[in-house]
Amino acid sequence: MTRTRTGVWFVGARGNVAATAITGARGIARGTIDDTGMVTAREPCTRLNLPPVDGFVFAGHDIAERPLLHTATDLADSGIVDRATLEAVADDLRGIDERVETGTARNCGSAVSLADGDTLDGVDGDRGVSEVVEQIRADYAAFLEEHDVDRLVVVNLASSEPPVRDPERYDTLDAFESALEADDADLPASSLYAYAALVDGHPYVNFTPSTGSELGGLRELADRENVPHVGRDAKTGETLLKTALGPMFAGRNLRVMSWDGFNILGNGDGKVLDDDENKAGKLQSKGGVLSEVLGDDAHNRVRIDYTPSLGDWKTAWDHVHFEGFMNTKMTLQFTWQGADSALAAPLVLDLVRLVAYADERGEGGTQTHLASFFKEPMDVDEHDLSRQFAMLESYVEAHRDAEAEPAGAVRTDGSGGDEGAVGVDAEANADTDANAEAER
Amino acid sequence: MTRTRTGVWFVGARGNVAATAITGARGIARGTIDDTGMVTAREPCTRLNLPPVDGFVFAGHDIAERPLLHTATDLADSGIVDRATLEAVADDLRGIDERVETGTARNCGSAVSLADGDTLDGVDGDRGVSEVVEQIRADYAAFLEEHDVDRLVVVNLASSEPPVRDPERYDTLDAFESALEADDADLPASSLYAYAALVDGHPYVNFTPSTGSELGGLRELADRENVPHVGRDAKTGETLLKTALGPMFAGRNLRVMSWDGFNILGNGDGKVLDDDENKAGKLQSKGGVLSEVLGDDAHNRVRIDYTPSLGDWKTAWDHVHFEGFMNTKMTLQFTWQGADSALAAPLVLDLVRLVAYADERGEGGTQTHLASFFKEPMDVDEHDLSRQFAMLESYVEAHRDAEAEPAGAVRTDGSGGDEGAVGVDAEANADTDANAEAER
Amino acid sequence: MTRTRTGVWFVGARGNVAATAITGARGIARGTIDDTGMVTAREPCTRLNLPPVDGFVFAGHDIAERPLLHTATDLADSGIVDRATLEAVADDLRGIDERVETGTARNCGSAVSLADGDTLDGVDGDRGVSEVVEQIRADYAAFLEEHDVDRLVVVNLASSEPPVRDPERYDTLDAFESALEADDADLPASSLYAYAALVDGHPYVNFTPSTGSELGGLRELADRENVPHVGRDAKTGETLLKTALGPMFAGRNLRVMSWDGFNILGNGDGKVLDDDENKAGKLQSKGGVLSEVLGDDAHNRVRIDYTPSLGDWKTAWDHVHFEGFMNTKMTLQFTWQGADSALAAPLVLDLVRLVAYADERGEGGTQTHLASFFKEPMDVDEHDLSRQFAMLESYVEAHRDAEAEPAGAVRTDGSGGDEGAVGVDAEANADTDANAEAER
Amino acid sequence: MTRTRTGVWFVGARGNVAATAITGARGIARGTIDDTGMVTAREPCTRLNLPPVDGFVFAGHDIAERPLLHTATDLADSGIVDRATLEAVADDLRGIDERVETGTARNCGSAVSLADGDTLDGVDGDRGVSEVVEQIRADYAAFLEEHDVDRLVVVNLASSEPPVRDPERYDTLDAFESALEADDADLPASSLYAYAALVDGHPYVNFTPSTGSELGGLRELADRENVPHVGRDAKTGETLLKTALGPMFAGRNLRVMSWDGFNILGNGDGKVLDDDENKAGKLQSKGGVLSEVLGDDAHNRVRIDYTPSLGDWKTAWDHVHFEGFMNTKMTLQFTWQGADSALAAPLVLDLVRLVAYADERGEGGTQTHLASFFKEPMDVDEHDLSRQFAMLESYVEAHRDAEAEPAGAVRTDGSGGDEGAVGVDAEANADTDANAEAER
Repeated sequence: MTRTRTGVWFVGARGNVAATAITGARGIARGTIDDTGMVTAREPCTRLNLPPVDGFVFAGHDIAERPLLHTATDLADSGIVDRATLEAVADDLRGIDERVETGTARNCGSAVSLADGDTLDGVDGDRGVSEVVEQIRADYAAFLEEHDVDRLVVVNLASSEPPVRDPERYDTLDAFESALEADDADLPASSLYAYAALVDGHPYVNFTPSTGSELGGLRELADRENVPHVGRDAKTGETLLKTALGPMFAGRNLRVMSWDGFNILGNGDGKVLDDDENKAGKLQSKGGVLSEVLGDDAHNRVRIDYTPSLGDWKTAWDHVHFEGFMNTKMTLQFTWQGADSALAAPLVLDLVRLVAYADERGEGGTQTHLASFFKEPMDVDEHDLSRQFAMLESYVEAHRDAEAEPAGAVRTDGSGGDEGAVGVDAEANADTDANAEAER
Repeated sequence: MTRTRTGVWFVGARGNVAATAITGARGIARGTIDDTGMVTAREPCTRLNLPPVDGFVFAGHDIAERPLLHTATDLADSGIVDRATLEAVADDLRGIDERVETGTARNCGSAVSLADGDTLDGVDGDRGVSEVVEQIRADYAAFLEEHDVDRLVVVNLASSEPPVRDPERYDTLDAFESALEADDADLPASSLYAYAALVDGHPYVNFTPSTGSELGGLRELADRENVPHVGRDAKTGETLLKTALGPMFAGRNLRVMSWDGFNILGNGDGKVLDDDENKAGKLQSKGGVLSEVLGDDAHNRVRIDYTPSLGDWKTAWDHVHFEGFMNTKMTLQFTWQGADSALAAPLVLDLVRLVAYADERGEGGTQTHLASFFKEPMDVDEHDLSRQFAMLESYVEAHRDAEAEPAGAVRTDGSGGDEGAVGVDAEANADTDANAEAER
Repeated sequence: MTRTRTGVWFVGARGNVAATAITGARGIARGTIDDTGMVTAREPCTRLNLPPVDGFVFAGHDIAERPLLHTATDLADSGIVDRATLEAVADDLRGIDERVETGTARNCGSAVSLADGDTLDGVDGDRGVSEVVEQIRADYAAFLEEHDVDRLVVVNLASSEPPVRDPERYDTLDAFESALEADDADLPASSLYAYAALVDGHPYVNFTPSTGSELGGLRELADRENVPHVGRDAKTGETLLKTALGPMFAGRNLRVMSWDGFNILGNGDGKVLDDDENKAGKLQSKGGVLSEVLGDDAHNRVRIDYTPSLGDWKTAWDHVHFEGFMNTKMTLQFTWQGADSALAAPLVLDLVRLVAYADERGEGGTQTHLASFFKEPMDVDEHDLSRQFAMLESYVEAHRDAEAEPAGAVRTDGSGGDEGAVGVDAEANADTDANAEAER
Repeated sequence: MTRTRTGVWFVGARGNVAATAITGARGIARGTIDDTGMVTAREPCTRLNLPPVDGFVFAGHDIAERPLLHTATDLADSGIVDRATLEAVADDLRGIDERVETGTARNCGSAVSLADGDTLDGVDGDRGVSEVVEQIRADYAAFLEEHDVDRLVVVNLASSEPPVRDPERYDTLDAFESALEADDADLPASSLYAYAALVDGHPYVNFTPSTGSELGGLRELADRENVPHVGRDAKTGETLLKTALGPMFAGRNLRVMSWDGFNILGNGDGKVLDDDENKAGKLQSKGGVLSEVLGDDAHNRVRIDYTPSLGDWKTAWDHVHFEGFMNTKMTLQFTWQGADSALAAPLVLDLVRLVAYADERGEGGTQTHLASFFKEPMDVDEHDLSRQFAMLESYVEAHRDAEAEPAGAVRTDGSGGDEGAVGVDAEANADTDANAEAER
């Protein structure tokens, strides 16, 4: 069997989620951690011949200059990144860091642009939009040329942008491309990155609430080019719980009168979301999920606040007030104390594997079977988590490779056998070399 | 369309759940409340021609003498039974109370027998087991003769019994009947009631963790007589949440290290469970559900404690400690503040409707499609709530009556139309009369 | 011993707190409830000869027209007002309602004025400020003339006003009175009521976060006239807890890094607070208490949100993140589920008793020994609840009436003896008549 | 000013609390951490010339053989012991470890004896009780001879013992000493250590719920020898909160109907407490505190359960159900997530400083002013935390050394000045040498 090498391009490559995903992937490759938290490391996905995590070759864009290793070290101090892993992969991180190009922050809101450094928008932002897109495409292409990978998957991990006003003006590819040419000042960075990927046939994953490939013009492009894309806003915490618990209330005919959710968090994401403009996009996708499951009657509030002492930890308190038989009013409260990056990172790796797999099979367009990963799954109305899991299961059932043997998350070479086993073989070392090569 | 009248026999007819179910059913019949909390009042069950709640004619056994109306009044004081309903159905309750016969408390544990009054076990419990069974059969038969009902559904709502030791000794019908004849002192009351029902073809629902129809001999009997039966231990609160949340952790490959659940409650059920012997049965069914979903690794504790000030309210605090990517340890806590009887009562009405429906269609034996209602569903290993809901949905899909029009929970006469509509028509009044007749 | 009759004038006499306080006071007088929740019904206050609750004669201002009895009935439906008491005092409530005069809503924010009806500000608010004050004074005087009471205590229970801008412009009595004459459009209603009370020697209690007697000019007036006054913003829930828990962290040298408090509530107060303008005053007094106790380092957030389904119930979730030895980060979370009116009403009665007592003894000016009742106690920096309790204790110690015998909250006639005893004697009936007289 | 060197003898010297206290004290001496969490590092105690933490010379008894450094490393892995500190003091820990003598485990319950290794009770426990006592005294004496310290403070940090039956049989010193001579098999280890300390004039602190110096005979001894002693059961978490919150309910006349507390923890202490026999003593002191504060009416339950995944972390959930005005039932819930050792260790250091200070001034007998540190303070009925803090404050007020300058926790040399400042001066290094000397 041929070994797969997958190029993974992170927009926001020096942020917490990217740092955790890269450190974790390299830790799996080097055998310091297992694949707990990865959906593709368990049934049903283990029945597919997904590309192995130790074959991932990382690169990306960012506007921050703080080295990956520093971010990962902070996360280790917060108890999130594993210390033994950090030491084992420090050289890998240094190597990958050299492959991070300067990105754009167009329409990312003042909270983002103020926080960070140079961008590829030129001095005083005087570079035209289409020039910016050309630069992004060139960055993708240069990476591909330099590294011997089978394909490049672009994943948006950058801070939440404010929502685009009147997105319907970009409903066709023509309209989008005309806007590009006309140097339309309203086009958001996330959609520029998405366009640059799709137009050259690179699969695209929108892990954030930003616009990305949601615009009609970009969907048209993905369909025309037959490129897989999927999004948006990965569900990792409070919203995940909502989609697990909401159907319970509905199934039992218990009337939810109000569902109030309060989130406090302390990382950079929290700081950006402290800006009302940026928060708007996030709240929209967090709130929407419940009205789909419960109907519009329920009073439904979500708040996100920045509490610096929490670092990368997020605590959510939800208060659900519901009515049962004979108008009896009852209450469910929960508190969720999660490490955002530790919850998000394995899903990033899962999505790269699953989207690369689809691309390999020529399955372009929106990947609806991945709905369980997202707060606002593109082209899917179903928000019941279990039903979304069932959609993934059906996909696997239909694809189950005749030849596939159950295998762990990290390799497809069949040598390991045990599900979830990790280890470093010769090829894995080759990948490691790939990741560390800029270093030398 | 002919109007259905269903006889409903509650073992434990003067307890909180029975009082709430009866008050609620009569309130639905009289139009004072709607059917919130009833699973059969919403999709998919509304697609079946289930027997209407306002056609239920109630009776039962109990060893307590406190009138139903007193119990219902206490529940109104606790904010559970609706006050307007209570006034509207007070006469109905008085009438039904006269149809409650003295029951047995064999092997129900000292907590139960000490708490209550006379039993049909005779002075000093000197009546033989088979005599007791004959008396129960006679009670069922007398009711049937007196009331013009289509069938009699027996529902066990009595306090939790201690578990039966070596239940395999009753694995065949022969063994069970020999034990009856030999006046076997170990046979629990719940199984005597179940036998008396099944042997004469009455469907049986075990809403409690007691043994009931679980014994091999009784399953054989139900199969031979082609009578529907189902159980056991309805899931109404903490366990319901576990079966909704457990699959979320599993599906995301998050490793649950420990799941501790602490329940405090203040009603009579709580007092009985304060006895270690009786608690054993309850804890077994509450605990089991998680090891099925999560595997045996997780440390899994359930405690139930009696806190008198809570009355019929139960508060559960659950602490779930789980591990994600890179060994990051995270926590979910929830508190559930529910009114036990308000959660249980509508499910009792649902189960009567669904079991009567099966009986009408000649579908005897264990009703596995009702697994979503129970902590320990008979003959079903699936504990994922959503998958259990799907089993009910498949059943409905297969049965969807060609002629059935979507209808509310309370009537099948087709006159109402709106889902969930309640009202009292002429026939409903007739039922009311049936329920109130002993009064006159 | 002579029987004391105290006139009690509520600004906001038809609101939830007033309705609960009046219903409760009349329930105590009529013997349907005891005095649980009243600070003056226990040690140390029982050592003082405080005026009895059953001698309170109620009246007040409001701009709402909904009758007291309706409000009290709603509160009974929410499980707050006791139903037996409601029935027993319904006539009293009707009588008191006729003594509620139309009030003013000057500078109370648009949330208040839109919500309600006529005011004494004249058609189109064309009445001058000094005319409004004259009308208030005339209302107080008419009540005093009509009812045989020893004194009149005015208590502000109206919805929170927006904070006054530049309050220092009213720092002297001269400045305040000049503003009155100049028809200053910025003077808030609460301060007009306070001025009208103090200028004629009536004690004044500001139970709300509004400005009331806080202005320098009004303090000067209270001192000149030797009238007792006190405020502001009674602490009944989350803030009460903060002042009990804050000192624990401080005393143990545990460093609070962040204290986030989220409140959801569903009553009219909640609706008014949903307006950012009105919320500002409230948040200021809720937030301030912690920085006093913990120093300015801690990140300190308070949010108040309106969740209609909760009715008069308020739920607060607080998340306290603190650092102990060797930088270990730990967490305390609490949820407080309280009935606002049931917590506030007994304190209203306490304050009337204590302020009337001070007035009787000629103790004018700010009543600092009542600091434990308030979020922002006037002229007191101490926010440690226990130390505030100690201030009350010292006051009692200094005043302990030689002749006083320990007595219950409701009477001082010495006939009862048992602490907390309630009952109706001949005099109490006379009071009842007073309260019900308008009815006849 | 002369430098003070205090000998600190830990019974249970290799447990979590001892390891954290020693590591922390050495970290303070070496300047890697500050004194957050130490009561004596803030007002009012900073007004006393307490012996400095960097002058502590550690030794002790244990029956476990696992080296201190290993325990401290585990605690660092749990996020409790600071990693930089651990590295800085590793040599100190190794040195101190060599000064830990084999101890006794008489009557410590089977959970303790099974868990551990050799004891000084001899092969098969055949050594007489008085021999054991002689050995302990000899161990204390040998340490004193070898190290140049001003005094030796013995602190009991060993696992909770089962309660002593009929403790009144040891009510006089005569009775205790006769029992010693008669080789009484019921005398618990904690009292043997206490006797051995007091009889030779060494101050004694009982940090645990075990019997220690509580027996009448040992109190008599302490009085006769004029040695300070104090206990028992330090309050660090749930109980601390109870004594802060209980008075709030009492002060507001809110009637607590039930207070249920559930604790889960995962360290060795938790494992020992999983044994019902050992748990009995703990539950007694945790439960008692509330009945003192709230009266006997309230239903009051405490549970402690062992949840291995929590490691040294303890989570407590408390549910307080209380009644306010007009019988309104309300609820307070809290969850406390604390690191037991991080909360306990600084208090150990505080108590050594305060007891050594008393000893220096010839203040023998029970140290009642230290009540705020304990769940069951000896000879003190007051459980209100604030009043207990006030007792400490009064003591300081009475002792405030004329010459004393406010100083940090770690030194009294006056060179630093800033409160809470840490640093290493020449003398501190001398102490460091003392602590590390066995190493060389």
